[in-house]
Amino acid sequence: MSRMRQRHLFTKTRKEAPKEETAKNAKLLIRGGFIHKEMAGAYAYLPLGYRVLQRICTVIRSEMDAIGGHELHLTALQDKRIWEKTGRWSDEVVDNWFKTTLAAGGEVGLATTHEEPLTNLMTEFIHSYKDLPVYVYQFQTKFRNEKRAKSGIMRGREFLMKDLYSFSRSDEEHNEFYERAKQAYHNIFERVGIGAHTFITSASGGSFSPYSHEFQTLTDAGEDTIYLDREKKIAVNDEIYSEEVLADLGLSKENLETVTAVEVGNIFSLGTKFSDAFDLTYVDEDNKKQPVIMGSYGIGPGRLMGAIVEVLGGENEMLWPKEVAPFDLHLLQMSDDDTTYAEAEKVYRALTDAGVEVLWDDRAASAGEKFADADLIGLPYRAVVGTKARDAGGIEFTDRTTDTVRIVSVEELVRLVAENA
Amino acid sequence: MSRMRQRHLFTKTRKEAPKEETAKNAKLLIRGGFIHKEMAGAYAYLPLGYRVLQRICTVIRSEMDAIGGHELHLTALQDKRIWEKTGRWSDEVVDNWFKTTLAAGGEVGLATTHEEPLTNLMTEFIHSYKDLPVYVYQFQTKFRNEKRAKSGIMRGREFLMKDLYSFSRSDEEHNEFYERAKQAYHNIFERVGIGAHTFITSASGGSFSPYSHEFQTLTDAGEDTIYLDREKKIAVNDEIYSEEVLADLGLSKENLETVTAVEVGNIFSLGTKFSDAFDLTYVDEDNKKQPVIMGSYGIGPGRLMGAIVEVLGGENEMLWPKEVAPFDLHLLQMSDDDTTYAEAEKVYRALTDAGVEVLWDDRAASAGEKFADADLIGLPYRAVVGTKARDAGGIEFTDRTTDTVRIVSVEELVRLVAENA
Repeated sequence: MSRMRQRHLFTKTRKEAPKEETAKNAKLLIRGGFIHKEMAGAYAYLPLGYRVLQRICTVIRSEMDAIGGHELHLTALQDKRIWEKTGRWSDEVVDNWFKTTLAAGGEVGLATTHEEPLTNLMTEFIHSYKDLPVYVYQFQTKFRNEKRAKSGIMRGREFLMKDLYSFSRSDEEHNEFYERAKQAYHNIFERVGIGAHTFITSASGGSFSPYSHEFQTLTDAGEDTIYLDREKKIAVNDEIYSEEVLADLGLSKENLETVTAVEVGNIFSLGTKFSDAFDLTYVDEDNKKQPVIMGSYGIGPGRLMGAIVEVLGGENEMLWPKEVAPFDLHLLQMSDDDTTYAEAEKVYRALTDAGVEVLWDDRAASAGEKFADADLIGLPYRAVVGTKARDAGGIEFTDRTTDTVRIVSVEELVRLVAENA
Repeated sequence: MSRMRQRHLFTKTRKEAPKEETAKNAKLLIRGGFIHKEMAGAYAYLPLGYRVLQRICTVIRSEMDAIGGHELHLTALQDKRIWEKTGRWSDEVVDNWFKTTLAAGGEVGLATTHEEPLTNLMTEFIHSYKDLPVYVYQFQTKFRNEKRAKSGIMRGREFLMKDLYSFSRSDEEHNEFYERAKQAYHNIFERVGIGAHTFITSASGGSFSPYSHEFQTLTDAGEDTIYLDREKKIAVNDEIYSEEVLADLGLSKENLETVTAVEVGNIFSLGTKFSDAFDLTYVDEDNKKQPVIMGSYGIGPGRLMGAIVEVLGGENEMLWPKEVAPFDLHLLQMSDDDTTYAEAEKVYRALTDAGVEVLWDDRAASAGEKFADADLIGLPYRAVVGTKARDAGGIEFTDRTTDTVRIVSVEELVRLVAENA
C-alpha cells in the first residue's frame, strides 16, 4: 500500500508515553503509534512502525544482494543435538536460551543465532571447491532470554535480525569478502540516515582473527563505551582498549574521544570454529580435503530503527530519513470545506500518480492536533492545504530535512518531491 | 534478486528424498532444494523455496490490501495474563502451547494464534464509532506443539501464518466484510494456481454464527473428509454433516461426493467472544456503548505451498503456477563452447532486460542432469540453447503449462514470455 488516508489508520498518537518506558526510542515510537509494548523486551510493530521496519529491511536486502548474498529462512525451533556439537546448548556457555519441551518428547531451543544449524545444513551442499564461495542471509526473529530489557526496541527478548554467513575456500577469499561486507554495512548506515553518527570499531576477534568489527552509533542511549578517532573515523571498543592495540591500529591516545554508543552491526571472522565442529570441508583442486572458512555479519533492523530514533528524534517530534520513512509526504488538510477537500484530493492523486507515498491527514481535527501529530509521525516532506496557504498562492510545502518552506503549485510540488522520493 | 546463474545457487537437487519423509510435498521440495528439514515439523526455506513462499505472500498481501487490510506485526512471545482473560492460557483449553520461562521470572508462551493480544491492543485505539471498522493482518510465525508432524510443510510445529482480523460496528458491517474476505480468498487460491481444486466448505461456527468457512483443496494428502457438490462448488465439513445442515445449505445427499482434502484457509465470525473478554467496546452515534464485532481470517502460506505441490507435483517433477514460481523461465545452456555461452548470455540479458525472472543453468553438467533438475525445480517456461536447437533454427522454447514446444528467435522468446510473466 503506497498511500493512506489517515482516517483509515487505526492508531492514534499519544500526548504522553507510558510511565514505565525509559528509553527515548520506545517513548517516541509508542507516542507516534509505531509500536506497542506487548511485554518487557517484546514490541509489536503497528502499521507505521512496520512500514519503517520493512523499508530498513529493503535497504539491507539490496546491499546483501549486491555482494552476492542469497536469501533463505532458517527455523526458530532448534534441535538440541546440533547445538551440542559446539557445546553451545549448555546454559553455562550461552546464558540467554529460551528452551521448551516438545509434546512428542525432548527439549527444543529458540534460536539466539544460527551458526550451528546453517553450518550443519551446508554439509549437505558443500563438497568441492566448485561449490564455494557461498553467501547466504536471512531476516529472522531471534529470541534471547535477557535478564533486563529496558532499551526499548534496541534490546529485545524477541527481535528481528539480519544475519549473513560466508563460506570461503581460503583466508584470502574470506578477507576479500569481509572487506566487501564492511563496505556494504557502511552503505546501509549511510542510506538509513545515521552514517555520519556511525563508526567502525575494532573489537575482540576470537581465536581466528585479531579483531572483529562493530558498527557503533553515537548516542547516550547506548550501552557501550568506545574510543573514537573522529578524524580517521575509526574507533576501538573498550574490551580490547590497550597501548598495544592502539599501536597496532595506528591510533594515538591523544586523538581519541571516549564516547557512548550502541552497536548497530557487527562482522566477525569465524575461521574454522564451526566448520571443524560439523566437519564442513571441501575437496580442493589438488583433491585435498580442506576446512571451509566462515564469517558472520549481523544487523538488527529493529535495533537500527531504535538507534535512528535516538539520534534523530526530538522531545516531541521525529524526522525519518527519506529511505526509511513510512511515507514520503504528509499531506495536511486544514479544514473540511469542499474547496479544501477537493484541493487535497487533487494533490493526493497528483503525488501518488507520480509514485510519491503520501499519508493524507483527512481527519476532522484541529490544525494544532494535525501539526503535533505530523511532528510525531515525522515524515520528511509536508504539504499543507487550506485557506491560509491558498491565500498565499498555493500549497505550503516543507522539506523538513532542510527546514525550507515554500508556497508552490501542485505541479511544482510533484516535481520537487518526486525528484527526491 | 530477479535473476540467477545456477552455478551460484548453493543448493543441489537430490535423486532420492530422505527415507523418513512420507509426505509428497516434503519429498519433492527437499529433492528440488527448496526446503531443509531442521527437525520434525520445522523446515528451513532455502533460496528457491523462500522465493516461492515470498511470492505466495505477495499474492495474499495484495488481496488483503485490496479489501482494506493494514499490515502490522505482533510478537511471538505471549503474556500469560492476557491469555488468562479468555481462559485460553490453560493447556486443557489449548493443548498445543509451547511455554517457557523468563530469566527475569514468570512464564511466557509462543503464540499459536493472536486474537487475545490483538483484541487487548485494540482497546487502546478503538473508542468511538468513528474508529471503526478496522481490518489488520500480519504474516507471523506461529508455534504449535503438535504431537505428530508428518505432513511436510502442510502441518508444522513452526509455520508462517497470514492472519487477518476484522473489527466492525454491527453484524451487518461484519457480514459485508466477511463476504469481501471470502471473495479475496477465492482470488488468492485462483492466483496461486489451485482455484479449480479448492472449494469453500461450511464448518462449525461457534456460538455467534451458524457456520464458519474453510477453503479445502482436494488431495489424498489431506487430513479432512468433506462432502462436495461439484456442480455448486460448495462442500460441507464432516464435523457438521447432517440432514438438517444439508437442508439449510440447500444441498442434497445424492449430489455429494465424499472426498479427502486439506484446509488451506478459514474464515470465522468471532462475534463478541473476544471483545467481551477484553471489554473492547465503542460509543455509537447515540452515545451508547456497544461491543465490537470481530472476525478472523487465516491462511498458512507454507501449507498453501505444500498443497500446491501435492496437487501439481509429479513423481519426479514440479510445475509451479506462474504467479508463485521462484523464477519465470529456466534457461538451459546445453554445452560449454563459446558460441553456446554467448547465445545463452544474449538470451539471459534480453529476457531480464524485459523484466523476466530467469534462472540460467550455466553449470558444466550433462543435458540429462540439466533436464532432470529443471523438471524438479519446475519453472513454467523453459528455453534450451545449444547446437541442436541452433540447427533447428534458434532456441527451443517450452511453455510447460500448455506443454507446447517451439523453435523461436530471441525476439520471439522475449515477446512470448514477457507478455505472460
